[in-house]
Amino acid sequence: MGNTNKYCYGFCLFTSILINILFTINLYLGGGGSGSGGGVGGGGGGVVGGLSWSEKAAAEAEAVAAISCSGHGRAYVDGSINSEGRPVCECYDCYTGIDCSQISPTCPADADSGDPIFLEPFWMQHATNSAILISGWHRMSYRYNGNPFISAELENYIRKMHSVAGNAITEGRYIVFGIGSSQLLNAAVYALSSQDSSSPVSNVLASIPFYPMYKTQTVFFNSENFQFEGDTNAWQSNNSTNNMDVVEFVTSPNNPDGELKKSVLGGKTIYDHAYFWPHFTPIPGPSDHDLMVFTLSKLTGHAGARFGWAVIKDKDVYEKVSKYIEVADLGISKDTQSRVLKLLKVAVEGDGKPLFEFAYNKMKDRWDRLTSVFSKSTRFSIQKRHPLHCNFFNETRLPSPAYAWVKCELEEEDDCGKVLEAGNIIGRAGSAFSAKDRHVRLSLIKSQDDFELLMQRLTEIVSLENGSIKTM
Amino acid sequence: MGNTNKYCYGFCLFTSILINILFTINLYLGGGGSGSGGGVGGGGGGVVGGLSWSEKAAAEAEAVAAISCSGHGRAYVDGSINSEGRPVCECYDCYTGIDCSQISPTCPADADSGDPIFLEPFWMQHATNSAILISGWHRMSYRYNGNPFISAELENYIRKMHSVAGNAITEGRYIVFGIGSSQLLNAAVYALSSQDSSSPVSNVLASIPFYPMYKTQTVFFNSENFQFEGDTNAWQSNNSTNNMDVVEFVTSPNNPDGELKKSVLGGKTIYDHAYFWPHFTPIPGPSDHDLMVFTLSKLTGHAGARFGWAVIKDKDVYEKVSKYIEVADLGISKDTQSRVLKLLKVAVEGDGKPLFEFAYNKMKDRWDRLTSVFSKSTRFSIQKRHPLHCNFFNETRLPSPAYAWVKCELEEEDDCGKVLEAGNIIGRAGSAFSAKDRHVRLSLIKSQDDFELLMQRLTEIVSLENGSIKTM
Repeated sequence: MGNTNKYCYGFCLFTSILINILFTINLYLGGGGSGSGGGVGGGGGGVVGGLSWSEKAAAEAEAVAAISCSGHGRAYVDGSINSEGRPVCECYDCYTGIDCSQISPTCPADADSGDPIFLEPFWMQHATNSAILISGWHRMSYRYNGNPFISAELENYIRKMHSVAGNAITEGRYIVFGIGSSQLLNAAVYALSSQDSSSPVSNVLASIPFYPMYKTQTVFFNSENFQFEGDTNAWQSNNSTNNMDVVEFVTSPNNPDGELKKSVLGGKTIYDHAYFWPHFTPIPGPSDHDLMVFTLSKLTGHAGARFGWAVIKDKDVYEKVSKYIEVADLGISKDTQSRVLKLLKVAVEGDGKPLFEFAYNKMKDRWDRLTSVFSKSTRFSIQKRHPLHCNFFNETRLPSPAYAWVKCELEEEDDCGKVLEAGNIIGRAGSAFSAKDRHVRLSLIKSQDDFELLMQRLTEIVSLENGSIKTM
Repeated sequence: MGNTNKYCYGFCLFTSILINILFTINLYLGGGGSGSGGGVGGGGGGVVGGLSWSEKAAAEAEAVAAISCSGHGRAYVDGSINSEGRPVCECYDCYTGIDCSQISPTCPADADSGDPIFLEPFWMQHATNSAILISGWHRMSYRYNGNPFISAELENYIRKMHSVAGNAITEGRYIVFGIGSSQLLNAAVYALSSQDSSSPVSNVLASIPFYPMYKTQTVFFNSENFQFEGDTNAWQSNNSTNNMDVVEFVTSPNNPDGELKKSVLGGKTIYDHAYFWPHFTPIPGPSDHDLMVFTLSKLTGHAGARFGWAVIKDKDVYEKVSKYIEVADLGISKDTQSRVLKLLKVAVEGDGKPLFEFAYNKMKDRWDRLTSVFSKSTRFSIQKRHPLHCNFFNETRLPSPAYAWVKCELEEEDDCGKVLEAGNIIGRAGSAFSAKDRHVRLSLIKSQDDFELLMQRLTEIVSLENGSIKTM
């Protein structure tokens, strides 16, 4: 509001106070009721910049945002309320108390999940342009005009986002939306596998270590069209026939280890590009594969929105993926599509520089601190990172992956998760990624509180190697 | 804003105009930028009732709502824009022009889809309380505090909604959310079918005429656990063994014909209660089945939000349905859950009376007009409706189903869809519901424009029977 104040002194201050009082009266005495009649037109009659029916929702959102949770929690418009119906703080892990000010000193450093909260401060800094007000009658239909399930505006901004990041070719490609990338992974397997009952079942593979969801979904849905066959390299050495029907997941950068990967089998592939953004990896050039899957979660940090998309070359494959989404759930939430559009409009501002610089600097800082700790250890190691030219930042940089892939180097310590657990650190075991438990994945993309606690515990456990416990 | 005006004369009018001007300047010159620093606290400094970062989103929503589309279209914050970047009208079917004022006289009356737009005016009348402002940093995590994927607040309001409507027992029952009821239908089939590969495959059945999605999903996902076996009555007469593994869909009220149905086979059942609300059917009492599926779409009219829920008695079944949602898409959109909470808070106001009375009156009016037209016809008939005591309205009433199930009575007119098509009416053919094409489903829950056009065309086609064409 600083800009308004330039125009507003003295008399205006007085009127501002007056208007505030009138508004408070209106909100608490009268404004909470329903709009009269059927009209919602903005036209005349309104005080305050013309706002009428939207005022209450806006005031609620600001009131909740203003609740202090000591920086260790947050209140939400849809969150827990106290006995008086007022929103209360929901404290982050390891913090308690009405205002989340009390830390639990023995609380474990939880580096398990890939919750991308590291980007939350960016959105607080861009509060004005990233907020969206959804009216009660917004997009009630199943359909958009024209396309049944996909917002054409949002599709345009997704293409723009890729163009700005330089990470994928979208010209002349089809785009399908899904519930996160999660749903699109299985939709893609469906689309690439044989639907002909006379054909042999399609074999789904990935390269160890790989993201567990590929296996979980394929096994869980137990389709007659496809089955999970595990590791690509094992498959290649065990199978002499090359013409069998395979669908290969290529995760690039890889989850858990951040490697830029290529197809091993060279057949039908699903490129999972969840982490192929300039803050996690140098972008050597735009990806141009037949079927690429992306997710908002690892781009803007909005995992809770459950929004992903696939970029697809072949029309037949595109139609099958679309059909899968339609049969599964008649399209995806239009409220979510509205919000994602709003977020992407901010994300492409300044040709993506503000977002990607914020995100990259955050990740680089975390990696600098992490490598500093691990450099003092012979008991633990983390993955090697290789510098590459990044087209987006136009310089050669080290990757700063979302996860550290930690290895316990001592021969007797073959369950690295247990070793870290003894140091009060929770990671995700190597076996979750079909690798050995000598490895553990540590998430580096959670909140600053989570990262600070992780650093503290890692520093402690590494200090033990030198026989002395130092505090960070 | 009427209430404010009581306090606001003369001087206040002047200040109001002044503030409006200042705001306009702020919005167009300064307010569009990012919030400064990391803070989003509401505290001092703001003009206008304390609003700061939320003001722009609120103003955008009101500006778009104020765009006149002649009542035959709508502009959206996330919709089409013109070359100057301003939102433009998206016209409803049969209307064109910049302001949607031009009707296309030969446009068909499209009564195909179950788009529940008849409730849109209710939400416009409740604009203030149903609007929600979502901040850029709202619920970025995959998880809620406590429950990973389900808002506890929303779950409470769903229970309250059922208690208010008196249509389902939820005490001591589990609740799972899904992407519309669509996703929950297949999740329920999964949960009730055998996952043991040594067991025989489960047989999925429904009673003709039935909602096509049951068959479509079961066939499409092609699971080794279950297969679609068609009609319950045919199954019963063809199978002598009674102990076979069946999962039966019971749609009550039924889509397409509005009948309150019961299980035919008496085994494992999925009660699809999408239409079991007081505006479509008298509620004889609360439903208390093992697995019941509901959808927001046919309760509040928000099909586009893609939100449904299942009410489940058995813990094991609940866990399987939850697991299905988790594996399919790691939970459902938190933006959507926020909005649904806001909508249900309005829906339960006045113990549900305002919503259900609005919706019932709308449906009753449409049925009165529809029966009046069909009463003049011997060529077409519609389903019989039977009065029942409704606990919610505490009186005996006729049902007012979402769809008319039209039958062509002349022996030679065995493709009723074609007959109506000749009258420029689009319905959904009986065969889509595995029935004969002598029946057609007509949707009665679309917009008033759609219904008026349908009435006009039906009046015309019925008038033909008497050899004269009357206008309505």
